[in-house]
Amino acid sequence: MDLTGVKELLATNFDLHMQDETHYIEAFTHSSFVNENRNLDLKDNERIEFLGDAVLELVVSNYLYRNYPEMDEGKMSSLRALIVREESLSKRAVECGFDQFVRLGNGEEASNGRKRPSLLCDLFESVLGAIYLDLGLDAIEHFMSLTIYPKIKNGEFMRQSDAKTALQEELQKDGAIQLAYELIKEEGPAHEKRFEVAVRLYDEIIGRGVGHSKKSAEQAAAANALEMLKK
Amino acid sequence: MDLTGVKELLATNFDLHMQDETHYIEAFTHSSFVNENRNLDLKDNERIEFLGDAVLELVVSNYLYRNYPEMDEGKMSSLRALIVREESLSKRAVECGFDQFVRLGNGEEASNGRKRPSLLCDLFESVLGAIYLDLGLDAIEHFMSLTIYPKIKNGEFMRQSDAKTALQEELQKDGAIQLAYELIKEEGPAHEKRFEVAVRLYDEIIGRGVGHSKKSAEQAAAANALEMLKK
Repeated sequence: MDLTGVKELLATNFDLHMQDETHYIEAFTHSSFVNENRNLDLKDNERIEFLGDAVLELVVSNYLYRNYPEMDEGKMSSLRALIVREESLSKRAVECGFDQFVRLGNGEEASNGRKRPSLLCDLFESVLGAIYLDLGLDAIEHFMSLTIYPKIKNGEFMRQSDAKTALQEELQKDGAIQLAYELIKEEGPAHEKRFEVAVRLYDEIIGRGVGHSKKSAEQAAAANALEMLKK
Repeated sequence: MDLTGVKELLATNFDLHMQDETHYIEAFTHSSFVNENRNLDLKDNERIEFLGDAVLELVVSNYLYRNYPEMDEGKMSSLRALIVREESLSKRAVECGFDQFVRLGNGEEASNGRKRPSLLCDLFESVLGAIYLDLGLDAIEHFMSLTIYPKIKNGEFMRQSDAKTALQEELQKDGAIQLAYELIKEEGPAHEKRFEVAVRLYDEIIGRGVGHSKKSAEQAAAANALEMLKK
């Protein structure tokens, strides 16, 4: 695979200077390409995406922890879910220009895979995995400071929508749906209440959350469902 | 809070030399203690646990990625769920001796909170958060190399049980239960099949997973349910 374009993109736009090409080859190879070229014995990007997902989770958690000392765990959790959800990361992949370089199988290409949000979201996380392996966590922090942190800072994810709204939007892409939030448990004395809420899509519980108020438990349940949908 | 004991424990057993006490005070303070001492304006460990959870997820993912190059994403995902599940981390908290130092409210203490797995699991992650903030990722790697990595290496989590067995064990703590795995979708050509499986506890779907075989999709669904249970 010729990585000249990727190398230039990373250097010019992000001041990141690729050292070990193998990680990027892995990141920019979709499973559909591997399946159509079995003779080449290639690796697809599923493993490196698994790693990139964890890298992203850490740096976003760390950013929220350090910059919002007054934000409670439930709110950090919903905000993180909004930042790393498929709809958000697939946009970032396109903004960064990663979509133009991913290798797809012909079938995937023909069915417009290059624009598919789940593929783009996985690609974004895969590239993070490659940068992490190649250049380490400082390079990731630098990349984040040019891409996602400014959006957090200017309140894009907070303004945009809360976790309940985001979950509703995410699910109704495939047609109208109805979500129900159910109080599962309420315990503790008045000054120390703990609520547990489940969010149900018809007969399925798709998320659970706890909080010190019913409202925050609902947000946590929605955030949990968003996270699970992504996996 | 007097941290002499914690400081000695970390130095003697893990060669970790505490620099900034504030993170450890946060990590060793349970919400029940804060609630019973409102006048002291303390922070409980929920925020730092949120961070520690992400730290743990990254270092375990990184370890699996680097040491098991042949393991596919689905298998890494189930293995990670087994390593970071409540039952596993609560044991680690006791093995490390963290349980003796956590500050609890009187009510929590009286109801045996110091032995409660969910409290101990949160505590373990909180301490990881504190070590990360105080001493960085290298210190975390060192700590992991003395605690969790050797257990992964000698196959404890692989031998012990697969994700399906672990899920069964986790749920039947509160009495006998019955889990059912249902094939939701099967698609793709023979060499590129994709299975989607849901795991159901009576009328509720509690986890979902995909894989290239039915078996691996079931493991992924069980791992997904384990993750959801933890949150």
